[in-house]
Amino acid sequence: MADSPRVLNLADLHSKFDAPWSPKRIGRVDNYEVKLAKGEGSFAWHAHQDEDELFFITSGILRIDFEDRDSVRLHLGEMTIIPKGVRHQPVVEEGPVHILLFEKAGVVNTGDAEAGDLTQSIEDI
Amino acid sequence: MADSPRVLNLADLHSKFDAPWSPKRIGRVDNYEVKLAKGEGSFAWHAHQDEDELFFITSGILRIDFEDRDSVRLHLGEMTIIPKGVRHQPVVEEGPVHILLFEKAGVVNTGDAEAGDLTQSIEDI
Repeated sequence: MADSPRVLNLADLHSKFDAPWSPKRIGRVDNYEVKLAKGEGSFAWHAHQDEDELFFITSGILRIDFEDRDSVRLHLGEMTIIPKGVRHQPVVEEGPVHILLFEKAGVVNTGDAEAGDLTQSIEDI
Repeated sequence: MADSPRVLNLADLHSKFDAPWSPKRIGRVDNYEVKLAKGEGSFAWHAHQDEDELFFITSGILRIDFEDRDSVRLHLGEMTIIPKGVRHQPVVEEGPVHILLFEKAGVVNTGDAEAGDLTQSIEDI
């Protein structure tokens, strides 16, 4: 009998890692990836020039700041989609922040910002 | 000042419609769509030959049956990804079932099943 698709329990999967801003891949939809991340403090200012990026929050409050528009605040059960090319900075307002990301495979987490400590390769969990 | 990205509160958006198995589009990530649906009873057996399909549950219990593998059961906070080409049937085990779907734009909800009452075009909410 073929393997059944995996059931992905977000809370269980979020409990398997601690490092902030270090996305873990939990699945793929065609050439798009579903990733989990935790937030702490603020992330780098960056943009993804060619890809939209979905943020969905399952714990805490995440603020996303923009250079040219008002910030958005995401609480548990809320998502937003950052359009390609829009420079943004995620900032934890109330932790622990648990994030689900959905974006094209191969997107670098720090986008067009200079690679640094926050730039992370993606691991599967 | 440019418009900020929309904050999508899944519970609020789910409260805006009642019809079961009639997906509503709430956003796009590149050429992929984020849709909400409600479930009631069982949906048609079908497959999407060329696209994977992500189901995420925010209320109730949804069972997904397969012809050639064990069923999966999805509770609040759980998702699964149905691989392209795999025939499946979503069945409500405990309602109300609220579903978030993520799949390529243009996918028909009943896949390769004969079009019928369950075949719905997608509206934005």
